[in-house]
Amino acid sequence: MKKMAVLTSGGDAPGMNACVRAAVRTALARDGEMVGVRRGYAGLLERDFTVLDRRAVANIIHHGGTILGTSRSEEFKTVEGRKKAAEVLRRENIEGLIVIGGDGSFRGGTLLAVEGGLKVVGIPGTIDNDVYGTDSTIGFDTAVNCALDAIDRVRDTALSHDRVFFVEVMGRHTGYIAMESGIAGGVEELLTPESPMTVETLCSHLEHAFNRGKRSAIVVVAEKEEPGVTFEIAEEVHRVLGLETRVCILGHIQRGGSPTARDRVLASKLGAAAVKALWEGKEGYMVGEMKGKVVHVPLKDTWEKFKGMDPELEELASLLCQ
Amino acid sequence: MKKMAVLTSGGDAPGMNACVRAAVRTALARDGEMVGVRRGYAGLLERDFTVLDRRAVANIIHHGGTILGTSRSEEFKTVEGRKKAAEVLRRENIEGLIVIGGDGSFRGGTLLAVEGGLKVVGIPGTIDNDVYGTDSTIGFDTAVNCALDAIDRVRDTALSHDRVFFVEVMGRHTGYIAMESGIAGGVEELLTPESPMTVETLCSHLEHAFNRGKRSAIVVVAEKEEPGVTFEIAEEVHRVLGLETRVCILGHIQRGGSPTARDRVLASKLGAAAVKALWEGKEGYMVGEMKGKVVHVPLKDTWEKFKGMDPELEELASLLCQ
Amino acid sequence: MKKMAVLTSGGDAPGMNACVRAAVRTALARDGEMVGVRRGYAGLLERDFTVLDRRAVANIIHHGGTILGTSRSEEFKTVEGRKKAAEVLRRENIEGLIVIGGDGSFRGGTLLAVEGGLKVVGIPGTIDNDVYGTDSTIGFDTAVNCALDAIDRVRDTALSHDRVFFVEVMGRHTGYIAMESGIAGGVEELLTPESPMTVETLCSHLEHAFNRGKRSAIVVVAEKEEPGVTFEIAEEVHRVLGLETRVCILGHIQRGGSPTARDRVLASKLGAAAVKALWEGKEGYMVGEMKGKVVHVPLKDTWEKFKGMDPELEELASLLCQ
Amino acid sequence: MKKMAVLTSGGDAPGMNACVRAAVRTALARDGEMVGVRRGYAGLLERDFTVLDRRAVANIIHHGGTILGTSRSEEFKTVEGRKKAAEVLRRENIEGLIVIGGDGSFRGGTLLAVEGGLKVVGIPGTIDNDVYGTDSTIGFDTAVNCALDAIDRVRDTALSHDRVFFVEVMGRHTGYIAMESGIAGGVEELLTPESPMTVETLCSHLEHAFNRGKRSAIVVVAEKEEPGVTFEIAEEVHRVLGLETRVCILGHIQRGGSPTARDRVLASKLGAAAVKALWEGKEGYMVGEMKGKVVHVPLKDTWEKFKGMDPELEELASLLCQ
Repeated sequence: MKKMAVLTSGGDAPGMNACVRAAVRTALARDGEMVGVRRGYAGLLERDFTVLDRRAVANIIHHGGTILGTSRSEEFKTVEGRKKAAEVLRRENIEGLIVIGGDGSFRGGTLLAVEGGLKVVGIPGTIDNDVYGTDSTIGFDTAVNCALDAIDRVRDTALSHDRVFFVEVMGRHTGYIAMESGIAGGVEELLTPESPMTVETLCSHLEHAFNRGKRSAIVVVAEKEEPGVTFEIAEEVHRVLGLETRVCILGHIQRGGSPTARDRVLASKLGAAAVKALWEGKEGYMVGEMKGKVVHVPLKDTWEKFKGMDPELEELASLLCQ
Repeated sequence: MKKMAVLTSGGDAPGMNACVRAAVRTALARDGEMVGVRRGYAGLLERDFTVLDRRAVANIIHHGGTILGTSRSEEFKTVEGRKKAAEVLRRENIEGLIVIGGDGSFRGGTLLAVEGGLKVVGIPGTIDNDVYGTDSTIGFDTAVNCALDAIDRVRDTALSHDRVFFVEVMGRHTGYIAMESGIAGGVEELLTPESPMTVETLCSHLEHAFNRGKRSAIVVVAEKEEPGVTFEIAEEVHRVLGLETRVCILGHIQRGGSPTARDRVLASKLGAAAVKALWEGKEGYMVGEMKGKVVHVPLKDTWEKFKGMDPELEELASLLCQ
Repeated sequence: MKKMAVLTSGGDAPGMNACVRAAVRTALARDGEMVGVRRGYAGLLERDFTVLDRRAVANIIHHGGTILGTSRSEEFKTVEGRKKAAEVLRRENIEGLIVIGGDGSFRGGTLLAVEGGLKVVGIPGTIDNDVYGTDSTIGFDTAVNCALDAIDRVRDTALSHDRVFFVEVMGRHTGYIAMESGIAGGVEELLTPESPMTVETLCSHLEHAFNRGKRSAIVVVAEKEEPGVTFEIAEEVHRVLGLETRVCILGHIQRGGSPTARDRVLASKLGAAAVKALWEGKEGYMVGEMKGKVVHVPLKDTWEKFKGMDPELEELASLLCQ
Repeated sequence: MKKMAVLTSGGDAPGMNACVRAAVRTALARDGEMVGVRRGYAGLLERDFTVLDRRAVANIIHHGGTILGTSRSEEFKTVEGRKKAAEVLRRENIEGLIVIGGDGSFRGGTLLAVEGGLKVVGIPGTIDNDVYGTDSTIGFDTAVNCALDAIDRVRDTALSHDRVFFVEVMGRHTGYIAMESGIAGGVEELLTPESPMTVETLCSHLEHAFNRGKRSAIVVVAEKEEPGVTFEIAEEVHRVLGLETRVCILGHIQRGGSPTARDRVLASKLGAAAVKALWEGKEGYMVGEMKGKVVHVPLKDTWEKFKGMDPELEELASLLCQ
């Protein structure tokens, strides 16, 4: 395969640039050609292309965000849209497409492959770590460390009396960011989609802890559907227990920042692996990393199957977060 | 003066520990004695003291928070309370008291000095930089850099289309954190208590910017009385302009973290200066830094007079933040 | 097992405190007792003990270094020394000992177990990641990110013409820090113990790169036996190629700093696992993490067997670092 | 003045990009035109120009280094070279030139102005803070915080016995980086060009401190002429006192990294002030900041006069660094 394209799709994640760089340099190492598609599937439909040579990917490995941009496309969600996309690629003699994104992006990629007869390979890039088929997604480690930094800062000031601090982190369907940053931050309580807790239960836990001698507590909350919901929880805790509460909403801060070493190494590994997969004629797969090794997972599985929470982490949290 | 005491009061601020360390080491250098008062004025009333020797202040210069703790005291707000406090200090042969805190703490300190005949010296320690008589307060530079880091992270992800990102920072009465982090972050709009803006005006600014070609904007908001108010502003902007909005509430994250070099140098300078002021018989003063030099400001002025916004910064913001 | 002890040994590593905390909290959860041994094996011989309750391990999870301290002990290297150590532990009714350290510490621990009939469990804590039986050691991820930050900073300034920047990182026997920080940093050349390179070869690589159009290059060097050796390499490169060179020696900077999320989660996991291993009567093992799961490896293997470089990383480096 | 040019010269410094951005946006606000000169005076001679519009300076405020590049030029050191440079500018109808750099760059700028009849305004941009006429140079605060981070990390590991850690920082002629990072880091000893110390004196200080109970010490050394000289000092300390020593050489790490808030605000202020100075017909000046206010200093003074060490800092260091 001589000519391939790469795009980033969905919410951006730190490490996407490192991934694009690795894909480009791997392709060039065997005299391949890599076309960058700007603004995800929307840009694909509009033929918003850019040639990615060595120079184009120089000095981007450490930058957050994505040089290619992302956006949503309603058109691509239709059969006609995907047909048009396949047509655009074929006219440019692009034989393979690398999609860096999350489960929604892979759903589109799967349909593009099936309907358009294109070779599509996915790379998991999303801070939420909610993609089946890989132990970690690109951007997750950076987001966790960002949330952890916030928790550490709150801890500095948490020695005042009788206060409950809430830190709201991202995680619509999965609580991985909350779980890892909470364990690493040594917080008292964790509210995740996998282990939902009523405000009553939370209050009774906190009451128990304060009775035991705690003077302050940090609660990490995964945002679920509605950012800002933590203000309501905090108010209820204040009403019930009479404790002062303070709320931080991290929001998009977690999406940014220079990627960690781990995210850059993972991104480099998977960027190279995706190009190799296309060379080897593999198609309709996502390249992921499981148990320390690169794996190839049917693209369909990544959005049809559900990635549950790691039970080792859950056990650890129940032992150490209280 | 042989025996002095030091306490931290009000909201804690990064650099308070560096300040306590400098005060202790300066006192010890002339064979003085420094007593640490735990939990601010409340601890003073309860004689919650600890001896501060070299060992007690070793390895604290880089830690956020305050090893002495802070708290509020309703009792100290009464004449009787302050009399009791003066009594406690006299019984311990403590001749001078150093109060590290903000304007509220200095108000109490002034009354304690006047009513109790005690030598009190204040040091401005608060992230808000809202104390008259000093160009910068201890903790301010750290808080600004914390807010700036958040803005930088949001910028990474802000290249998506048609989005307005809001970052809510602290600043009840003054917008210094918003102002400096906003200029340094290169944001589009600044909402501060000094330059309030209706949501209508904000919308019209944003509309103008997006019409001019902007695809995203970052707005920094000083929280004023009510943390979380930014969610309402964001909703209104969404309603009026139809732009997607995202909100981050930094909250107590800004209070924590290892102090910057500038905050530690300032804290060290003022900690040493406060002890020297007591030695020299100065009392009822706050030691601050203006135009690069240590100054002595009547403690009363610090809470009676109002510190306005630096006009050079305002001009710079009006030139560069758009 | 009711009473256990824990010590940290060898070079300290970020995450050791998080590990001690997890071990203590796990032991307390089942009404066990955990004694802290200060200053490693030397402190053990001198009965330098401290009781570790919940309070003792509060607010340490985010601190670098080790609250228990480490040191070397010549006496413990003798049979008599280890007999005495076993005697000290027995007299205190301490049935199990947790040793957090590297291969040298585990060698001593193995002998203590065999000769003294004590239950010893090891936990890999060293920044070098050179311990057989675990994919990663506690402290490694933090050290890599520290080295990476240095590389990123150098990159900012590396656009000047005709310069070669050298960053010397730790790694006596293994080049893991160099390898991961080099891949993540996108450096041009890597000098590791596993893939040694003559200065002639390095010069020829650099010459080739500069002829191809490079205007600067970053070379990461694992320090091997002698810190500072990089100055000699840089001088030789300057002599041969006429390029200006600049050298950074990271040294002990890499040992410090707040541990990353990954190091804290790993430390928490292994701290808990070590206590459980002792409960279950396992002895003479190191608890490590391989392929994402906690494993038990004979303590003897950890220092008798050699942990080679990950071939996936080597391949990635040969593809991307040039 | 309608058309101006800006260049960065000498060693690059964090904040130079923020400064270029502010100059461009200020010029554009009054419908001026700003030309960027690539690679300093060398690029000027070769007419290596680029148009700087709003887009060109978007998203650079937070990046270290300089988008314009720097380099040395032997030709510009000659009268002929400078004549040619003036000619190049005149032919482009560029009436004013902004030079961001240090004293060496201002020397060249002064001569260009005098000989070529050009309007030249300087902006102090160098991490060393060794420019007369400004309290702080752009990049200094970032460099100090970088050095401080290294000291903090070393401190984490410095609790081992009987060790002396050396951290070598930049500072050829002035010890400002050493001084501020040393005070902020709470180090034991400071070796600066302004207060040189023989190794014998250093050893006697250290001996005294260790006799008094210290178990470790951190020494900050300003590199002076020869990077790496600290290895020799460390060896001598080891030889004389028998203490183990460890050395870190920060080197160009200090030049990189995202600029701090303070550096960005200063850079923005001075970038705007330089354009205004040209508008107002001021020429042959450097814009600096003294006592919190923008000042105009004759360009000639900046390299003819010597900026001594701040005596308040020296006193503070002698009080607190021991």
